[in-house]
Amino acid sequence: MRVGRASSHIDGDVIEFTPSADQYAYTFGGAAPVLEVPPGSVLRLWSEDAFNGKLQSTEDKPSEMLNMAEVNPQTGPFFITGAEPGDTLAVHVVDLEPARDWGASSAIPLFGGLTSTPLSPTLQDPLPEATWIYQVDAERRMVRFDAVFGDFQVDLPLAPMLGTIGVAPPSREVRTSLVPGSYGGNMDSPEIRPGATCYFAVNTPGALFSIGDGHYRQGEGEACGTAVEGAMNSTVIVDLLKTGAAPAWPRIETDDALMVIGSARPLEDAWRIAQFEMVNWISELYGLAPMDAYQLVSQISLAPLANVVDTNYSSVVKVEKHLLPAVRTYGGMHDHLRDRAAQIRATGPRGFRPGPLDLTD
Amino acid sequence: MRVGRASSHIDGDVIEFTPSADQYAYTFGGAAPVLEVPPGSVLRLWSEDAFNGKLQSTEDKPSEMLNMAEVNPQTGPFFITGAEPGDTLAVHVVDLEPARDWGASSAIPLFGGLTSTPLSPTLQDPLPEATWIYQVDAERRMVRFDAVFGDFQVDLPLAPMLGTIGVAPPSREVRTSLVPGSYGGNMDSPEIRPGATCYFAVNTPGALFSIGDGHYRQGEGEACGTAVEGAMNSTVIVDLLKTGAAPAWPRIETDDALMVIGSARPLEDAWRIAQFEMVNWISELYGLAPMDAYQLVSQISLAPLANVVDTNYSSVVKVEKHLLPAVRTYGGMHDHLRDRAAQIRATGPRGFRPGPLDLTD
Amino acid sequence: MRVGRASSHIDGDVIEFTPSADQYAYTFGGAAPVLEVPPGSVLRLWSEDAFNGKLQSTEDKPSEMLNMAEVNPQTGPFFITGAEPGDTLAVHVVDLEPARDWGASSAIPLFGGLTSTPLSPTLQDPLPEATWIYQVDAERRMVRFDAVFGDFQVDLPLAPMLGTIGVAPPSREVRTSLVPGSYGGNMDSPEIRPGATCYFAVNTPGALFSIGDGHYRQGEGEACGTAVEGAMNSTVIVDLLKTGAAPAWPRIETDDALMVIGSARPLEDAWRIAQFEMVNWISELYGLAPMDAYQLVSQISLAPLANVVDTNYSSVVKVEKHLLPAVRTYGGMHDHLRDRAAQIRATGPRGFRPGPLDLTD
Amino acid sequence: MRVGRASSHIDGDVIEFTPSADQYAYTFGGAAPVLEVPPGSVLRLWSEDAFNGKLQSTEDKPSEMLNMAEVNPQTGPFFITGAEPGDTLAVHVVDLEPARDWGASSAIPLFGGLTSTPLSPTLQDPLPEATWIYQVDAERRMVRFDAVFGDFQVDLPLAPMLGTIGVAPPSREVRTSLVPGSYGGNMDSPEIRPGATCYFAVNTPGALFSIGDGHYRQGEGEACGTAVEGAMNSTVIVDLLKTGAAPAWPRIETDDALMVIGSARPLEDAWRIAQFEMVNWISELYGLAPMDAYQLVSQISLAPLANVVDTNYSSVVKVEKHLLPAVRTYGGMHDHLRDRAAQIRATGPRGFRPGPLDLTD
Repeated sequence: MRVGRASSHIDGDVIEFTPSADQYAYTFGGAAPVLEVPPGSVLRLWSEDAFNGKLQSTEDKPSEMLNMAEVNPQTGPFFITGAEPGDTLAVHVVDLEPARDWGASSAIPLFGGLTSTPLSPTLQDPLPEATWIYQVDAERRMVRFDAVFGDFQVDLPLAPMLGTIGVAPPSREVRTSLVPGSYGGNMDSPEIRPGATCYFAVNTPGALFSIGDGHYRQGEGEACGTAVEGAMNSTVIVDLLKTGAAPAWPRIETDDALMVIGSARPLEDAWRIAQFEMVNWISELYGLAPMDAYQLVSQISLAPLANVVDTNYSSVVKVEKHLLPAVRTYGGMHDHLRDRAAQIRATGPRGFRPGPLDLTD
Repeated sequence: MRVGRASSHIDGDVIEFTPSADQYAYTFGGAAPVLEVPPGSVLRLWSEDAFNGKLQSTEDKPSEMLNMAEVNPQTGPFFITGAEPGDTLAVHVVDLEPARDWGASSAIPLFGGLTSTPLSPTLQDPLPEATWIYQVDAERRMVRFDAVFGDFQVDLPLAPMLGTIGVAPPSREVRTSLVPGSYGGNMDSPEIRPGATCYFAVNTPGALFSIGDGHYRQGEGEACGTAVEGAMNSTVIVDLLKTGAAPAWPRIETDDALMVIGSARPLEDAWRIAQFEMVNWISELYGLAPMDAYQLVSQISLAPLANVVDTNYSSVVKVEKHLLPAVRTYGGMHDHLRDRAAQIRATGPRGFRPGPLDLTD
Repeated sequence: MRVGRASSHIDGDVIEFTPSADQYAYTFGGAAPVLEVPPGSVLRLWSEDAFNGKLQSTEDKPSEMLNMAEVNPQTGPFFITGAEPGDTLAVHVVDLEPARDWGASSAIPLFGGLTSTPLSPTLQDPLPEATWIYQVDAERRMVRFDAVFGDFQVDLPLAPMLGTIGVAPPSREVRTSLVPGSYGGNMDSPEIRPGATCYFAVNTPGALFSIGDGHYRQGEGEACGTAVEGAMNSTVIVDLLKTGAAPAWPRIETDDALMVIGSARPLEDAWRIAQFEMVNWISELYGLAPMDAYQLVSQISLAPLANVVDTNYSSVVKVEKHLLPAVRTYGGMHDHLRDRAAQIRATGPRGFRPGPLDLTD
Repeated sequence: MRVGRASSHIDGDVIEFTPSADQYAYTFGGAAPVLEVPPGSVLRLWSEDAFNGKLQSTEDKPSEMLNMAEVNPQTGPFFITGAEPGDTLAVHVVDLEPARDWGASSAIPLFGGLTSTPLSPTLQDPLPEATWIYQVDAERRMVRFDAVFGDFQVDLPLAPMLGTIGVAPPSREVRTSLVPGSYGGNMDSPEIRPGATCYFAVNTPGALFSIGDGHYRQGEGEACGTAVEGAMNSTVIVDLLKTGAAPAWPRIETDDALMVIGSARPLEDAWRIAQFEMVNWISELYGLAPMDAYQLVSQISLAPLANVVDTNYSSVVKVEKHLLPAVRTYGGMHDHLRDRAAQIRATGPRGFRPGPLDLTD
């Protein structure tokens, strides 16, 4: 593991950064920036797994190894040169590659979707705790589920995504990296994968952008509270929009879809936020009256849940682009970043290794 | 429209039934059966739209035309010969074809997902009411959205589904056809489309199965409260499982996936029910310990919302079959019904018209 | 116990009714009336406890003794002569007296406020089940809590109330006597005690009024799911208002306060319903603009929870009369019924025993 | 108004502190302490109203006058000498006296309990905004409600309470003074009034205690989102418990009752937290098994809501002391502080004015 080594260097367009353990941030907001980077930068970032790399075997007990005030260590925050409140930060996910040949998942006592929790307590005993280790087959791009309480195995496709991504919250708030909100954070949506451009409102000078909580694979809802958690090599491009209204909640654009993620409790309010924002977005993009947009979006939106386990729940509302006339969003930002990402993959700047990684450390 | 004419006849395997307006049921439970049919029957059913066919133009105001105690008219209930509490009713959706060349959707005052409602009241004024008429292009299999407050049009793919399907509730209850629950009902899930086998616990002698609320198309969440509502010709096969445990909540099987639908408020509890049942189902099918099943399902389940607007909200949890080893469910019932459905489509019994319908009435 | 003997007779003003076990109703709506009574009748009713009298010792296990589809047996329903949809039924609680010298409470597996439930499931083991027996000291008007898992005792004041009271639901629905709603039902509010006049909208001809689920004492929230449950002798006066708007949700009036009870999930919606109705009520009574009523009620309303354990949760909003100018509600109905109640207590018609009951059976 | 003048001085036991406008804190956590005070200190604190004193007439529009990121200005935080994480901070409210002869309340667009909000959005128009001014009659100890949309007046008893009181949150978080949580904050409970001792877990060195958001009167639920907001002179005693377990959520003790306040969404979880903590507290105090405590507390607890409008909702669970045997809590801290408070009132140290204040400024 690279834990303990901090490094950053700039090579061509690519800024590489690997935090040392004492550089991890455990909050959105409130942490000093680790680097300042200009808009347009390509960042290649190493992030530790959600467990700080502490769960390495099925013998490792979460209750003994984890400090719940220090999970989801963030790589960052990065101060984006020139970012001011009211601006929009665009982050394009170029590539996510497992940085280890194993991932871990766990049942943490009183954490998850099918257990009582400190925020919804019951008098029942906690579920048994356990750790599952998933071996990564980089060649076949699979992770192997290996039962702990029995002897069942099954290979599942590798599907890397980022659990946390976001900026500093508004109104002076500091939230732990376990919480999602209007600033992003621990949204745990499988939609945050290569090819996605995420848009965040900038709330503080420099935006203070960070990522972490890499998942080699996750189901929608993240039912047991943890995904196949793993250290990740992430390549992202950050850019800045100085004009136009910043989105109230995180928006995602891919070649195929527009999305909004709402985070709140109860879950219907997370959905409601995302649906409301999507109605407004479609209304603006196509010049529709709000009631017409409400009607249209009602018949075309998809609603894949993100997480139902964090301090706030996260719900995605998604509209597939092929259903609507082509339209230009955010001045063509996604197309621009997607093209740059393709170029990066094609030209392969030093430090960027396309395709399956050498997962030996 | 066929409203007012009741008819039923049996032709080969196919039992046709078109209710007269006075035969509509507006409840699950509490209504006398319209027909008794043996397990294994193929039913070809006409159902009126959710609005009782009363919204036919953009001039039609929901507040004047609708009686909210009489929406979602049900075709049925059907008494399934031999069905007893504890049995499992299997219903395979063979085919859903629009029975009109137009559908309707509406904004009903104080009903829907982005408005206050009588169960979540505010002092704000209701949203403006409106009716949208969607023309059906049976040839191209499209429906046309036509803005009411502006002049935008777009064609959307026809994607027929059933909003309501279910049996009489347990514990003597009678619920309106606006409510979803453990007995099915108004679940409003786009997953209930041709190719789906639905499993319901039988709560009363004869099961008292009914369908209605045909949707020519619907987004997940059914945000505005109504889909592209339309009269529907539905072909379904009903069958009965006398052995094995009846599912606590509705299950769906397709060639590609296993699903459970939970219905409750708040929305996280609808999801929780579905996730809990899926964990149990996978645990049973693969002989996994509950904690292993919890872990595995957490990494593979999808969670497409059904509705966030009805008296209870409905959440689907879905596992794609290709991710897991092949397994036999419910004695192979889905495979059996799917094969019968293919045969019906191939041999085309009199009364069954495959392909696009003649939508002129 | 009187179980098994049915009786009713009219003596002076007082109609006595004790159901036989086969006369118990387990629903609101859907049950045939046991008697027709004219408006203005004084009813003296015996009701079995929520457990059908089956939990009589700390050795009795709820999981073995209870059928959860047959709890909260109702005495009634009574067909109120002349009651039509749109009318308002007024029920004044004259007196509630324990009909036994013991009550019972229990921890029912997967039922209650600090446990997972079938509507909010987790994978955790259920809590241990248990039954507590409370001895009634009629002279001192106390019930004795006697610990089951230890040896602690404490006497608590007798505070009789009715857990269930209501009429048939609207829209053809039938709900079990475990559910509260706009029609009343299992609201489990300590406010439904002697001196309270309850107002219900009449939804069906005859109203179909019933009571049951007597509590010798209950905390707000009814946290463990059951109160000190006991058979009850209830004296109530039923009356009918043919004019004026029927209340959308149950209202309660006492000499000291006006109240509304809302029932829904999540709990904020139960509160929201009650608060909304109270704003409207105060607005009407004092001719205030809605925004002024919203402001005023915000500064004076109390919000004692009723239950957070039933299929719907119930929340009371309460305004103390002394804070506002005197005002006439429902044509002076409460004052009229309260005066009749005083007279009944004073003149003591045969069959009515004021003061502590002879609790020997 | 005293806005703009900062002052603090120590006179005998009493430390007086009046912040200047630039000393207001708008967060729990994240703000530098204004003073260090030793345990046992009597603090006499002036706090500005929730609106920063900006709403002074019915003509003042909240949308024009308020910055929602700067409401509920806090007086503090105070660094309590020697307070360490794991300790318990005890704060006894000796006296709360209006510091002005008027209070203000308002309907803020998209804020409150009977309106959609940014966290539960709908497409409806906001409610009309308005400001109500309440005149204080210090002699009669009344505040006067004066309708804005009509001409109704009524005098309501003065009932001063603190809307916000608390310490820095755990896990490095910083929350705005609009949010309640395990650290206290904007709980908006009428129970926080003279005579109450509040117990908070200390999460950071010095605890960083602050108060604000004085209410001259508030209904339970704080339905419209704002109470009768007013600048307040608060006298409190702060003390520290170095031994024993710190409470997971705020506890309150008065001469008459024990209370816990839970804050969460949905509202049932706020109640669940408070009920769970009360069960544990009673279990500890009386040596009861958890199931016995669950049963006993179910029959005796009261549940007066605090707020259903803030970012988290707050629910109080309350047990009246007279129902249970006398017991010593927190080493007799409440009795000790209550006695000191009586002495302070009796001896009247300079700077402390018992009885009705001279409200002229």
